[in-house]
Amino acid sequence: MMNISENNHWMRLALKEAQRSTGLTSPNPAVGAVIVKDGRVIARGRTRQVGGNHAERDALSILEAGEAKGATIYVTLEPCSTRGRSGACTDAIIAAGISRVVYGLEDPNPSHAGRADGILNAAGIEVERGICEEECRHQIRGFISVQTKGRPWVIAKTAMSLDGKISRRNGEGQWLSNEQSRERVHLLRGEVDAIVTSGETVRRDNPSLTIRSPQVSEEKEQPLRVVLTKCGLDQSQWKLFNDEYKNRTRVFENIKLQDFLSQLSENEGVNTVMLECGGSLMGAFLDSNLIDEFMIFYAPMMTGGPHCAIGGEGVSGLEDRWGLKNPSIEQIGNDLCLRGLVLTESRRELER
Amino acid sequence: MMNISENNHWMRLALKEAQRSTGLTSPNPAVGAVIVKDGRVIARGRTRQVGGNHAERDALSILEAGEAKGATIYVTLEPCSTRGRSGACTDAIIAAGISRVVYGLEDPNPSHAGRADGILNAAGIEVERGICEEECRHQIRGFISVQTKGRPWVIAKTAMSLDGKISRRNGEGQWLSNEQSRERVHLLRGEVDAIVTSGETVRRDNPSLTIRSPQVSEEKEQPLRVVLTKCGLDQSQWKLFNDEYKNRTRVFENIKLQDFLSQLSENEGVNTVMLECGGSLMGAFLDSNLIDEFMIFYAPMMTGGPHCAIGGEGVSGLEDRWGLKNPSIEQIGNDLCLRGLVLTESRRELER
Repeated sequence: MMNISENNHWMRLALKEAQRSTGLTSPNPAVGAVIVKDGRVIARGRTRQVGGNHAERDALSILEAGEAKGATIYVTLEPCSTRGRSGACTDAIIAAGISRVVYGLEDPNPSHAGRADGILNAAGIEVERGICEEECRHQIRGFISVQTKGRPWVIAKTAMSLDGKISRRNGEGQWLSNEQSRERVHLLRGEVDAIVTSGETVRRDNPSLTIRSPQVSEEKEQPLRVVLTKCGLDQSQWKLFNDEYKNRTRVFENIKLQDFLSQLSENEGVNTVMLECGGSLMGAFLDSNLIDEFMIFYAPMMTGGPHCAIGGEGVSGLEDRWGLKNPSIEQIGNDLCLRGLVLTESRRELER
Repeated sequence: MMNISENNHWMRLALKEAQRSTGLTSPNPAVGAVIVKDGRVIARGRTRQVGGNHAERDALSILEAGEAKGATIYVTLEPCSTRGRSGACTDAIIAAGISRVVYGLEDPNPSHAGRADGILNAAGIEVERGICEEECRHQIRGFISVQTKGRPWVIAKTAMSLDGKISRRNGEGQWLSNEQSRERVHLLRGEVDAIVTSGETVRRDNPSLTIRSPQVSEEKEQPLRVVLTKCGLDQSQWKLFNDEYKNRTRVFENIKLQDFLSQLSENEGVNTVMLECGGSLMGAFLDSNLIDEFMIFYAPMMTGGPHCAIGGEGVSGLEDRWGLKNPSIEQIGNDLCLRGLVLTESRRELER
C-alpha cells in the first residue's frame, strides 16, 4: 500500500482530468483517471461525451497491449461493473493486467456501491478507495443528485448590490457586475447542462444565455436554455427563440418546480442546472428547498429599496435559514464572488 | 528636508497615537503627535478629552525645558493657531524651540487652513505638510464632517444574511452574526460618539447598545444612545431608559433626519454616529443620502423573503446607486465583514 500523500497526488491528477470533462458528459458523470507505472503517469483519461469511453477505457485506449501490466489506475469514481453502452470497466482493467485500482468515491447507486471491489479482488487486483473522496463527490455532484434525488443539482447564480438588491431600470442593460465577473459566468455556463430563467427575465432583458468565452472547451454544446413561465411567452420577439441555438430552448408553463427538475433529468439527461433569473423565481426555488449551491457576485454598491435578488417567502426565523458550507469569497476586480454549498445537514434536508 | 519614506514612518506613529484617542475627544478631533530628535522619538502625545491638552502640548508636556530644542514634531493635523481652551499650539511649539513641523492635513476650517505655516515660518521654523494626508483625513472624518457639512459622520452598521436579509422571529434574540463579529461591533462603538437606533428596534430587541469589551479604553465614556421614533416610546420597559447609563439616552420624536444629525453635533458635540437599526430607518438614512460609511457583517446563510437589512425607497436605476470606495472584505470566523466609504464623487454628492 502506498502512502496517503502519494495516493492524493495521483488522485488530484485524475480529478484534473475529470474537470476537463465537466459539463460534457451528462447524463454520465465526468470521471477522470490516470495510469501510473514506476512512479510515472503513462496514460490519462476522462469520460467522453455520451456514447464515448468511460475514463478508464479512455486512458487504456492510448496504451499498447501489455503496457499497463502491473500498473496502478487512479480513478475518481468506482469503476463500473455492468455492461452499459461500452463494456464494464472492471473487465477492461482486468484484461489490461492492471495490478492495483485506487478510486475516490464508491458508486452512488446503492445497489452497485462497492461491487467493483469484489470483482477486482477476485481477479487478484488490489483495491483502495476513499482517496480524496470529498473532492470526487463534489466533482460529480450533479450526477449524484440525479441518482439519489431524481433531480439535477441546482446552482443559483445571481449578481446583486452589497445590500442584496438588483435594482435597475427597465432597459438599463442587464449587467450589475463587472466584465471579469461576467467572464466567470460564461465559464460556469460551460460546466452546466441547462440554464433556467423566467419569462419575466426574458421579457425584461431578452438575454442570450449562451456561452461566449474562448476559455470554454470547443467540445461543449451550448447548454439547454429553459424558460419557466406562468402565462406563456410570445416567442417571436426574443433571442432565445430566434438565434442559431433556438433548438436548445425549452419552455415550461405552469409547472411545479420539483416536477420541472425531474423532467429535465429524465427527458433531457440534465445533471446540473444554473438559475439565472430575477428575485421571485430565485425565491420560489429557495422556498421549495431546491437550491444546492450559490454563486453570488456582489457589485461594490448599495442601492436600497425593495428589489431583492432573492425574494420568495423566506424563512420565518433563523432556525429555518439555509446555512452555507465553507463559503469562499474571492475578489474579482471590485466585485466579490461568493460560492458555497447549501448545508444538507440542516433541518431543511427534506425537500418540500 | 527629509525623504518621504522617513516622513511617512514618523507620521504613521503619530497616527497610531491619534487612533488611541479616537472616540474620546469629540467635539475635538483625535490628533496624534510624535517629537523626534536625532532619529529617535523623545515624546508622544494625543488629544485628550475635552478641556485637556491638544496632541502637541500633550507631547511637549512630558519633556524637560530645552529638551525639544532643535527637534521635529510630526502631527496629524495642522497645529491650531488660535487661543482656544488651551493656548495656541503654534505658541507652544515656538516656545519649546522645535525647529521643524511636519503635519498631515491642513485645518478643515477654510478660514484657518494653512495659517499655522506663516506663524511658524515667521519664527524660523521649517514646515512640511500633506504627509499621509489621506490617512490623516480618514482619522478625523467625523470632525471634518461637522466642520464642512454641519452634521456628524454616519457609519451604518448592520448584520445580514448573504442575500441582504435580517429575518428573525420576534424574541429570537438579536444576533445574526457570530461572537467575534459582535466583539468587533463593541470596538466600533468605542470609536463613535453616539449610537442611533429606532423605536422599532427598541421594542423588538430591547438592546443595551453599550460597550462591553475589555479591549476598549477605560477612558471611553459610554456613547450616547439615541432613539428615533415616530410615535413615542413607553420608557418604563426598555433597558436604554432604566440601566446605569440611562442619562446617556436621548429620544427624538418625528424629526427630519438632517435636522436630527445637526442637533446632535450642535448640542451634544457629536462627531461620529453609528446606526444600529432595522431596515426601514437604515433605508431612510440611505434615501436621504446621509450614510458616509458602511460596516456590514454577513452571516454565512441565506434566508430569502422580504425583510431587508437596508430598505427605504432605494434607487430607481443604477446611475443613482451609492458606490463604495475601495471596499475591504475580511473573514471573521465564518462571517464576512465588509467596510467601505460611500463615494462622494458620485452624483449624489448633494444631500437631499
